[in-house]
Amino acid sequence: MIRVGIVGGTGYTGVELLRILALHSEAAIVAVTSRSDVGKRVDELYPNLRGFVDAVFVEPSVDALIGCDLVFFATPNGTAMRMAGDLLARDIKVIDLSADFRLKDPAVWARWYGEPHVSPHLLEEAVYGLPEVNRALIRSARLIACPGCYPTSVQLALLPLVESGVIRLDRIIADVKSGVSGAGRKAEIPMLMSETGESLKAYSVKGHRHWPEIKQGLEQVAGRTVELTFVPHLIPMIRGIHATVYAELNAGYGDLQTLFEERYRGEPFVDILPPGSHPDTRNVRGVNRCQIAVHRPLDGNTVVILSVIDNLVKGAAGQAVQNMNLMFGLDETAGLRSIGLYP
Amino acid sequence: MIRVGIVGGTGYTGVELLRILALHSEAAIVAVTSRSDVGKRVDELYPNLRGFVDAVFVEPSVDALIGCDLVFFATPNGTAMRMAGDLLARDIKVIDLSADFRLKDPAVWARWYGEPHVSPHLLEEAVYGLPEVNRALIRSARLIACPGCYPTSVQLALLPLVESGVIRLDRIIADVKSGVSGAGRKAEIPMLMSETGESLKAYSVKGHRHWPEIKQGLEQVAGRTVELTFVPHLIPMIRGIHATVYAELNAGYGDLQTLFEERYRGEPFVDILPPGSHPDTRNVRGVNRCQIAVHRPLDGNTVVILSVIDNLVKGAAGQAVQNMNLMFGLDETAGLRSIGLYP
Amino acid sequence: MIRVGIVGGTGYTGVELLRILALHSEAAIVAVTSRSDVGKRVDELYPNLRGFVDAVFVEPSVDALIGCDLVFFATPNGTAMRMAGDLLARDIKVIDLSADFRLKDPAVWARWYGEPHVSPHLLEEAVYGLPEVNRALIRSARLIACPGCYPTSVQLALLPLVESGVIRLDRIIADVKSGVSGAGRKAEIPMLMSETGESLKAYSVKGHRHWPEIKQGLEQVAGRTVELTFVPHLIPMIRGIHATVYAELNAGYGDLQTLFEERYRGEPFVDILPPGSHPDTRNVRGVNRCQIAVHRPLDGNTVVILSVIDNLVKGAAGQAVQNMNLMFGLDETAGLRSIGLYP
Amino acid sequence: MIRVGIVGGTGYTGVELLRILALHSEAAIVAVTSRSDVGKRVDELYPNLRGFVDAVFVEPSVDALIGCDLVFFATPNGTAMRMAGDLLARDIKVIDLSADFRLKDPAVWARWYGEPHVSPHLLEEAVYGLPEVNRALIRSARLIACPGCYPTSVQLALLPLVESGVIRLDRIIADVKSGVSGAGRKAEIPMLMSETGESLKAYSVKGHRHWPEIKQGLEQVAGRTVELTFVPHLIPMIRGIHATVYAELNAGYGDLQTLFEERYRGEPFVDILPPGSHPDTRNVRGVNRCQIAVHRPLDGNTVVILSVIDNLVKGAAGQAVQNMNLMFGLDETAGLRSIGLYP
Repeated sequence: MIRVGIVGGTGYTGVELLRILALHSEAAIVAVTSRSDVGKRVDELYPNLRGFVDAVFVEPSVDALIGCDLVFFATPNGTAMRMAGDLLARDIKVIDLSADFRLKDPAVWARWYGEPHVSPHLLEEAVYGLPEVNRALIRSARLIACPGCYPTSVQLALLPLVESGVIRLDRIIADVKSGVSGAGRKAEIPMLMSETGESLKAYSVKGHRHWPEIKQGLEQVAGRTVELTFVPHLIPMIRGIHATVYAELNAGYGDLQTLFEERYRGEPFVDILPPGSHPDTRNVRGVNRCQIAVHRPLDGNTVVILSVIDNLVKGAAGQAVQNMNLMFGLDETAGLRSIGLYP
Repeated sequence: MIRVGIVGGTGYTGVELLRILALHSEAAIVAVTSRSDVGKRVDELYPNLRGFVDAVFVEPSVDALIGCDLVFFATPNGTAMRMAGDLLARDIKVIDLSADFRLKDPAVWARWYGEPHVSPHLLEEAVYGLPEVNRALIRSARLIACPGCYPTSVQLALLPLVESGVIRLDRIIADVKSGVSGAGRKAEIPMLMSETGESLKAYSVKGHRHWPEIKQGLEQVAGRTVELTFVPHLIPMIRGIHATVYAELNAGYGDLQTLFEERYRGEPFVDILPPGSHPDTRNVRGVNRCQIAVHRPLDGNTVVILSVIDNLVKGAAGQAVQNMNLMFGLDETAGLRSIGLYP
Repeated sequence: MIRVGIVGGTGYTGVELLRILALHSEAAIVAVTSRSDVGKRVDELYPNLRGFVDAVFVEPSVDALIGCDLVFFATPNGTAMRMAGDLLARDIKVIDLSADFRLKDPAVWARWYGEPHVSPHLLEEAVYGLPEVNRALIRSARLIACPGCYPTSVQLALLPLVESGVIRLDRIIADVKSGVSGAGRKAEIPMLMSETGESLKAYSVKGHRHWPEIKQGLEQVAGRTVELTFVPHLIPMIRGIHATVYAELNAGYGDLQTLFEERYRGEPFVDILPPGSHPDTRNVRGVNRCQIAVHRPLDGNTVVILSVIDNLVKGAAGQAVQNMNLMFGLDETAGLRSIGLYP
Repeated sequence: MIRVGIVGGTGYTGVELLRILALHSEAAIVAVTSRSDVGKRVDELYPNLRGFVDAVFVEPSVDALIGCDLVFFATPNGTAMRMAGDLLARDIKVIDLSADFRLKDPAVWARWYGEPHVSPHLLEEAVYGLPEVNRALIRSARLIACPGCYPTSVQLALLPLVESGVIRLDRIIADVKSGVSGAGRKAEIPMLMSETGESLKAYSVKGHRHWPEIKQGLEQVAGRTVELTFVPHLIPMIRGIHATVYAELNAGYGDLQTLFEERYRGEPFVDILPPGSHPDTRNVRGVNRCQIAVHRPLDGNTVVILSVIDNLVKGAAGQAVQNMNLMFGLDETAGLRSIGLYP
């Protein structure tokens, strides 16, 4: 039984971790922290967990986490990089769901996250937790940087094309749409239902923090520079991300459906839909799965990839548990075999 | 392993049965029928089931169901009563999720469902599948009439009060709100998103088919006539029912919180919330659970019970599987231990 | 041209006032205050007003409002009662959309609003701005207490029955459902879309501030004590209130459809639907209208009234402008002739 | 007073025409047709129109429209092309909101709409009713082809760039998102709220009928071939379109904000937002307005234009009335001065 701690148990990724781990046969939740709700029962705040989680929020401190085999950070950016080193020093593994260890270059991190990185020495060691790329590294990692929700959907859409060299790398466009839970559980006027319901908008068109992360991931597999335009949109629904990715095909690109099916054959959580499909975000609601369809509009030389995930599962907590399973030698699907909630 | 067939696998209760049964360790899905989609793969229609259900729709006929231990009817009203007898004669047990066997009096059934009942002899045998009332009978039943979604939420809200005699039985009001999936997967203009989104209305105020069912259920436990006003409402959400039930307390009614907690102690799927709570339908989304809170506004002698379920789970497919578990001597919670999807 | 000021122009009732008044041919907006956004253009915060409102937010102070003929308060409770006296002393009329002047008894006000009333002498003078009851008084009033959204929907549903004495006054139940905009434009976690979307709950079942207001209004027309249970619910939509009101008929109650049609004949903003109707909140979206239907379920002696309004229009800003029209001798419908936005 | 007829008054564009025209001071609705609801009052089907529209549905026939000055077709594709000739021959002007007269080449029309065009001689005469391009022609036209909703949003986003030659014309991408009312008022399972709520998907990625229309419009102003990828998406909201358009800038493109502001200076219904803005569809809800923002992500040479309209207003009925105003020499804004419904 893996003894796990969760730092930041009151946000949406935190409660989603609790939902998954409470039913995971190989994990025991031994500590859940929350700066704001110390002493309160977890299931008082989240009545969906009544009968499944018998924990009380504790202060976020290294002391509270002694005895854990693994700690998840489901915190705002800037917390994990201040605590991870102490935990690792005590042989406690760390899976960070925030952005603290996602970028390799501390200068780039500082530019996009607005403060110097306080643990730059750990950036090198941290493994980017996208199992479809880094499975072997994850198995032996001590520190995992769980990918962002947008980067997961976009990279899975592009990997077969970039790895195989069939698209131009200088003009990729990722138009991505997200449900509102991606913004977290924070009291902010723009996220009120009266503001986000029945409406749609783009945001951060000038530049979004997930842009350098996607670019870094694609460049790593490409081995050279990738030019990408990334525009996120806020959609009036709670869960789900839909990436619509556009790229220009090089000559001699072969059968794209086969390319995708081959690339992801055997992957437990990536599902290539039949030709002509249009994935719905609802079909992956609540589950650790990415469904993908590949199209060439009007049989031209633009390829359009449609990729859907649940931002809180394959885009966050589910992927984190997938990483945990790999790190601890479990069946990769342990605790993650569930079916999307339709309708 | 129980061999199960599902008649009517293309509606929302049918696909919800599939979602639950596909992960049930003691059940094997051996036949799924659909009049309209014969020959099509189930997971072509429902891509959330890809990798979990490997079946093809077959014609709805008794022959197709030979070899089943149990058949679920997830059909429109009027189908089960035409096939159940033949199945029972072949020693195949039946759980009907439609209304065909819910009312004991064939004359009442005919009045509310607009045609004569064709198997009135089975009405006597059929057991009303509300485990919180009929657990012992269900264990030995061959034919289960699964309660309607509204009746489940309202009866669970009222049972402790009616059984204990603390309320007047001549002036009960049940104001109930339902998500749109309760209307089923039918091509009808009033159920378009443009019609039901961002709006709210009552319907069938003159009289709704679930009224005689609720009345029958309450009168059975009361042992006498119950007068009930029942008004259903359509809410712009997909899943969930919230019953708000009003009754007048008799003198000497005692502590109501304790009454409810005692009544449902040990019930695996009824959860009495702490005093002062207001249940959210989201907290039972996707799960077989009823959460209930009890209030006396302004400390007066009106009791208000708030009761929430997921109409497709505890209000339909989940409760059906709970009945199956009881009929086949399994752990009552088999296949049903899951946590509500929040947010 | 009436020179109007708006105190609290950044909340939903404030921006709704702006939307209506900007197109009102007899009103000129001369001052819009906001504590938090002084110096900012109104249409920067609300781009829907671009080209229609050419104002800049100013500090909320009596000085900023000198020169107005009329000031609307679209503020949280507790503001209007601190400024209204000074404005009235300068011959500036006041329409308060908050709760400060709705209750006649300062002790009752203090109990429900959690502080002593600072202008109890104005409570007597204030006219409750429900034109369907107080039209004559409104015409000559200096200070209007605009009714709450719930009280508007419930009182309009009950007035014909209470005035005519056809129902028992000791067992009225008002089960009322509201869209989330009724909670205002405040940064609070429970009002995030992730919290309120796709879910439904009751709240304040123990007792809600609108209860004494409804009770006072009904008792005034009844001339005696009224016992009412009032339970509000939060619905996953932005605009709209649906009141479902239950009462017990006395003997000899006559034709209820006619009773309602007669009572509201000539009322420009109350519309009695044909027998058998079920009003949708969408049909009054964005407009100053109450649509009502009357039912007797199963022809029994319980009457059920269904009443819908847009909480921000007939439940707030529209009704406020209706009051303004009456106070200044304009056509009562000036600026309010518009059609509900369907779909 | 212009005497107008509406053919197809039961769809969403039809009822939206009624909503606008009922309050238009220069138009009188003299005939509303509906194949399915002949003899029924219009306001029985659409209770939002009670008190504003006093008409009864009649059979769709030329006879029923004699006496009209103008007929709007708010019909499925294929109807207007069968009736328009007869109406024009009787000196009745025609504004077609369907696709029948949008494409100039009958062969292209036949390929995308699946049948031969029955009135190819009228295609030449028909004026494409985008006032921002064809204002002068519209003033003297007898037959208007009202643009599609997607083409309106995309063309308004691109016109300044294409006309001025600052972008490459061989690699334009339009990723467009629409609310569900764009699919019309048809009883189809994919448009049920249970299917479209809380989910998001692309559709017709292979090729959509609005693609040749957009291409034709852009090529007309460019004077040469335009290559465009167009992908529509279905969003869980009722009204609103958001186009996100990507293009590659040529060298020496100048200040884009100024380019857009200059191009649309004086346009009553196109509003260029300040630099850095992200338009929300809600801000144009219910109104005849397009709001646009221009961005260069990371100051690169990709331009991203964000363009929002209400698909039923500037994308259909509002634009049709704007055309009517021009054709009949009225103020172009008559009947269209209204403010977006926020929240």
